[in-house]
Amino acid sequence: MIRIGIIGYGYWGPNLARNFAELPGVTLAGIADTDPAKLEIVRRRYPGVLTTSDFHDLLSDTSIDAIAISTPVSTHFEFGMAALKAGKHLWVEKPMTETSLQAKKLVEEAERRKRVLFVDHTFIYTGAVRKMREIIRGGDLGRVYYYDSTRVNLGLFQRDVSVIADLAVHDFSILDYLIGEYPTAVSASGTNHFPGTPANLAYITLFYPSGTIAHANVSWLAPVKVRQILIGGSKKMIIYDDLEPSEKIKVYDKGVSFTDDPKQILEMRVGYRTGDMWAPKLIEIEALRVGGEHFADCVQHSKTPETDGKLGLRVVELIEASTSSMRGKGETVYIQQHRKAS
Amino acid sequence: MIRIGIIGYGYWGPNLARNFAELPGVTLAGIADTDPAKLEIVRRRYPGVLTTSDFHDLLSDTSIDAIAISTPVSTHFEFGMAALKAGKHLWVEKPMTETSLQAKKLVEEAERRKRVLFVDHTFIYTGAVRKMREIIRGGDLGRVYYYDSTRVNLGLFQRDVSVIADLAVHDFSILDYLIGEYPTAVSASGTNHFPGTPANLAYITLFYPSGTIAHANVSWLAPVKVRQILIGGSKKMIIYDDLEPSEKIKVYDKGVSFTDDPKQILEMRVGYRTGDMWAPKLIEIEALRVGGEHFADCVQHSKTPETDGKLGLRVVELIEASTSSMRGKGETVYIQQHRKAS
Amino acid sequence: MIRIGIIGYGYWGPNLARNFAELPGVTLAGIADTDPAKLEIVRRRYPGVLTTSDFHDLLSDTSIDAIAISTPVSTHFEFGMAALKAGKHLWVEKPMTETSLQAKKLVEEAERRKRVLFVDHTFIYTGAVRKMREIIRGGDLGRVYYYDSTRVNLGLFQRDVSVIADLAVHDFSILDYLIGEYPTAVSASGTNHFPGTPANLAYITLFYPSGTIAHANVSWLAPVKVRQILIGGSKKMIIYDDLEPSEKIKVYDKGVSFTDDPKQILEMRVGYRTGDMWAPKLIEIEALRVGGEHFADCVQHSKTPETDGKLGLRVVELIEASTSSMRGKGETVYIQQHRKAS
Amino acid sequence: MIRIGIIGYGYWGPNLARNFAELPGVTLAGIADTDPAKLEIVRRRYPGVLTTSDFHDLLSDTSIDAIAISTPVSTHFEFGMAALKAGKHLWVEKPMTETSLQAKKLVEEAERRKRVLFVDHTFIYTGAVRKMREIIRGGDLGRVYYYDSTRVNLGLFQRDVSVIADLAVHDFSILDYLIGEYPTAVSASGTNHFPGTPANLAYITLFYPSGTIAHANVSWLAPVKVRQILIGGSKKMIIYDDLEPSEKIKVYDKGVSFTDDPKQILEMRVGYRTGDMWAPKLIEIEALRVGGEHFADCVQHSKTPETDGKLGLRVVELIEASTSSMRGKGETVYIQQHRKAS
Repeated sequence: MIRIGIIGYGYWGPNLARNFAELPGVTLAGIADTDPAKLEIVRRRYPGVLTTSDFHDLLSDTSIDAIAISTPVSTHFEFGMAALKAGKHLWVEKPMTETSLQAKKLVEEAERRKRVLFVDHTFIYTGAVRKMREIIRGGDLGRVYYYDSTRVNLGLFQRDVSVIADLAVHDFSILDYLIGEYPTAVSASGTNHFPGTPANLAYITLFYPSGTIAHANVSWLAPVKVRQILIGGSKKMIIYDDLEPSEKIKVYDKGVSFTDDPKQILEMRVGYRTGDMWAPKLIEIEALRVGGEHFADCVQHSKTPETDGKLGLRVVELIEASTSSMRGKGETVYIQQHRKAS
Repeated sequence: MIRIGIIGYGYWGPNLARNFAELPGVTLAGIADTDPAKLEIVRRRYPGVLTTSDFHDLLSDTSIDAIAISTPVSTHFEFGMAALKAGKHLWVEKPMTETSLQAKKLVEEAERRKRVLFVDHTFIYTGAVRKMREIIRGGDLGRVYYYDSTRVNLGLFQRDVSVIADLAVHDFSILDYLIGEYPTAVSASGTNHFPGTPANLAYITLFYPSGTIAHANVSWLAPVKVRQILIGGSKKMIIYDDLEPSEKIKVYDKGVSFTDDPKQILEMRVGYRTGDMWAPKLIEIEALRVGGEHFADCVQHSKTPETDGKLGLRVVELIEASTSSMRGKGETVYIQQHRKAS
Repeated sequence: MIRIGIIGYGYWGPNLARNFAELPGVTLAGIADTDPAKLEIVRRRYPGVLTTSDFHDLLSDTSIDAIAISTPVSTHFEFGMAALKAGKHLWVEKPMTETSLQAKKLVEEAERRKRVLFVDHTFIYTGAVRKMREIIRGGDLGRVYYYDSTRVNLGLFQRDVSVIADLAVHDFSILDYLIGEYPTAVSASGTNHFPGTPANLAYITLFYPSGTIAHANVSWLAPVKVRQILIGGSKKMIIYDDLEPSEKIKVYDKGVSFTDDPKQILEMRVGYRTGDMWAPKLIEIEALRVGGEHFADCVQHSKTPETDGKLGLRVVELIEASTSSMRGKGETVYIQQHRKAS
Repeated sequence: MIRIGIIGYGYWGPNLARNFAELPGVTLAGIADTDPAKLEIVRRRYPGVLTTSDFHDLLSDTSIDAIAISTPVSTHFEFGMAALKAGKHLWVEKPMTETSLQAKKLVEEAERRKRVLFVDHTFIYTGAVRKMREIIRGGDLGRVYYYDSTRVNLGLFQRDVSVIADLAVHDFSILDYLIGEYPTAVSASGTNHFPGTPANLAYITLFYPSGTIAHANVSWLAPVKVRQILIGGSKKMIIYDDLEPSEKIKVYDKGVSFTDDPKQILEMRVGYRTGDMWAPKLIEIEALRVGGEHFADCVQHSKTPETDGKLGLRVVELIEASTSSMRGKGETVYIQQHRKAS
């Protein structure tokens, strides 16, 4: 039995609490929040759970094995480092930290203390993304030509993070998980239409060593909600529409092909191929539950999570690079190649 | 009665021929093409029309008032200049020329000789684009925050032009017509996945003096066809889906608004507003016919076309700037501000 | 403060409990169910609420003002009559009873005792249906030509009721509420594809005195879920797609019109008219909450609910007539005209 | 080389002319129409083709092998019988005749004279319908539970035929071709909302000996266009959406299954099964061309068309039965079982 404490019972904390409370092999042990009203809600909903306005009470409780952090991003590093130093395993919401330097320090601290460091990039634990990885890694898609994502809606404007850290963060983690490469360069453009707020709209291109190109169009200012990813390969192509109630993933047996026919080469070098479309049935377990079970398993058997601190760090680096490029109106930002993707 | 000759009876030429043949006040006088098989088709379809493999025959025919050019882009300048020098009015397919220098020369020649120079940016003559201009210029949309276009499909790979000159060209002309501003900077990324072919996928961002940001996602390598533009304003937002059989334009009474309530400001500076949606009925006359009538009117009454050579030149400049930025992996390319948009 | 007891904590009971628990002016007083495991869940979720396996405990509790019944349909009459005889106001799930005779008796008993009798035809309390009534009753639609509903999905096969009582019941109540007429005749066809189960697919046509025709296509055996109603009027037409996340209601300025032009009459008597489409913003309060507040208001101020026992009775009569016609392979079943619709 | 003459150059005649003119092995020999203006159009478009206002000129021309009739339905019998008696092979538009008696006489005359009698039920020659037959007849769908079609739009009101003969006629022919059974009974309801016009909206149910049930919802009075068929089988289910530009046919590995588990039987006898969805690539040759080639092949090699006079007759019988039932407000009309479906 793993006992977990949660720091932060705001927007996402209640989901973590519900998930940990229901998970077999896991006990929701305590919740810290500075808002007494929220603690009152916790006490009514989870009578036996420790509530406190001082997160140190969770860290000093030796019965607690792990800490989950769902506070504003600006506090992730402080709370996470304190939890690790108190010997706790760590679950931290995305993005992992504000800066890549902070992320590196958390990774190092977790390694030094042999603690599990889990970053909650939830999409990695969805049936859709796992099915896409199966298709891509199994070779069915062929060479990956491009990844093209649109995440727009009339969204909640965030106070402390830009639309890149709020929405493009999903593409950065999904790309890391799917294509197993790390980009060499980033070009991003975007803007904040309202003075004093973070960027509410951004367009980010990632360039990969193999020639794959990835693009994310993210916005909080669209009249309709779109959550769609197109992935084109040399053999097949995928559409992933997360708002489809069923058939979220469609695999098209479509593509282009070169011809050796000299006559055709004169006219056009590239021919077309279209075939069947196929929508595989997806596993429908809630991603948060899959992630929770995986975290518990990692803690109990000293495994490395699929969304470990290193993946979290790589994602933070891409947020930094994109933000920097965006400030320079698309200026190319090159990225160090010292790391392997997942 | 205006007599028109067409140079080039390949992909688009037959549409021009049909359009001019049916247009009141216009006579299809002659067609030049180097392929005898195509001329044979013309002779069967339009018995009375002059056919020739030498375009000079059209230029030297003094009964011909205007020349329409629908040949590969690389020949637009040569044929166009010859036509103007022969005293003909000129209709030229988009993009106007390969280089902005060529475009400038055509504009100057047409001005010097007082000839009409019409660039066939067809979308400008659709009911959808004209309705959007009416909404935007009438002030209903408020300040234009962004323009976001997606034009992707498993497309015909072009030999001589990139996907920017083939697809993004539409966004450049529509933007010019809609928002009446000229961008100050461009950042574009893209790639050709097949050696020896032009770029088949590109992402272009345009930055405008007023703060408007525009983006076009264009690709010949997508499993599905998308032709969608989102335009967000301070008062309303538009979706233009060109593949919708009806209701191509939807106007959303949605947006964000600032609050003066100090309590709300603490939490979030921006609030939301949602209201009715409205899909105006659009004029359904074929764009090519509207353009053709406008051209005839301009020739007869010495008017300047809505899609004149200056607009054509501005579009070519944006293709050049985008292509240059794309080669630099998104490198910002600044644009001279010596011109007014339409 | 109105105190409510619930009989039946199965599929729908938990929703009633949550709704009454949250409703201002209402107290969830007790819950009866024969399954001890369900009562255990209730006790954990609502510590102060009376739980009992004998519904008489709720009826004899004089502090309880009203009883809500969410048990299988076959028991509605027994429990409902007992509640009314105990002097309680009554909320009963749809369909009101198994037979119209039972429904009549409940209506009479409620009238005799001056108790509120509320039948939970939830759709009547949705923003979409209320907006459609506003449009129709306000005259914007003109004369109602037809109502055409499709409710299909791979559904939960019911043990005790057919697809007519499960799905078409919604159309019967919506029609009653919208068009304010009662049908004169019914023709229905349908079948049960699996021996020993109730009909799982049915097609029902209702004929109205004014000439309006209504049709419902209901099935538990469709590969996709559809919840769509088309309503055609002489001035406008409506599409109501309940699965649309936004824009559930679209109003089309489309229709047909007669011509007086003798030439046109020779060819065709009917012309077409198409105009704008408009999607009004809908009130988004949960229907169950709107219904709950309305019920509380009726109890406190001795009002008649919009979905009263008479509407419930009319709906049960239509279920009976449809079922009878279906057994006769579409045989016309005529309906008494002794009643007014809402 | 087969020489064909066409009687009737109104709405559909030009399509037949174009098709026969382009078909290898076929010559468009002559066109008869009473309107001189239409014949003038023919002469310009097809210079070498015989034009006449008297259809007898085509019948007496011994060089003409076959006659295609695309006149109003009320004249099909007269022209068709005359053509057969003149020894011509016959192509007749759908529906074959106004009455089943007329249809029988044409079938008998064609048999007596050993002439090909082809009824142009075009949908039978589409890639979509042929693929569905392949799936159903190959056993992949299992037992066919139901066929459910919606064909609605703001349509051209017909002068001489009802919406049943105009739209449901497609379902009657498709059903005949797909499921190879002939219905035992029909129940139909519908109405004409405009005095003096044929029924503009109808709902038709067909009952088959095997237990299959079929339904068609047809209307000229809907604000949107729908062309959708759902077919449910014991193993798989199909959606055929004819307005989808690609993926017209989707095959769902979904269904219900009985359980032997006594516990489950207590609760519900039927369980669910969901799996992959699959959209097969369809042959995209124009149906009219496929039909034309098939007709030419039947004429040359004395074969029986897939859409022969017997199929045409069965369809006319269903139109008659539906119309009769509709007049009786859904009254069941039983059908003779002397015939086999295709």
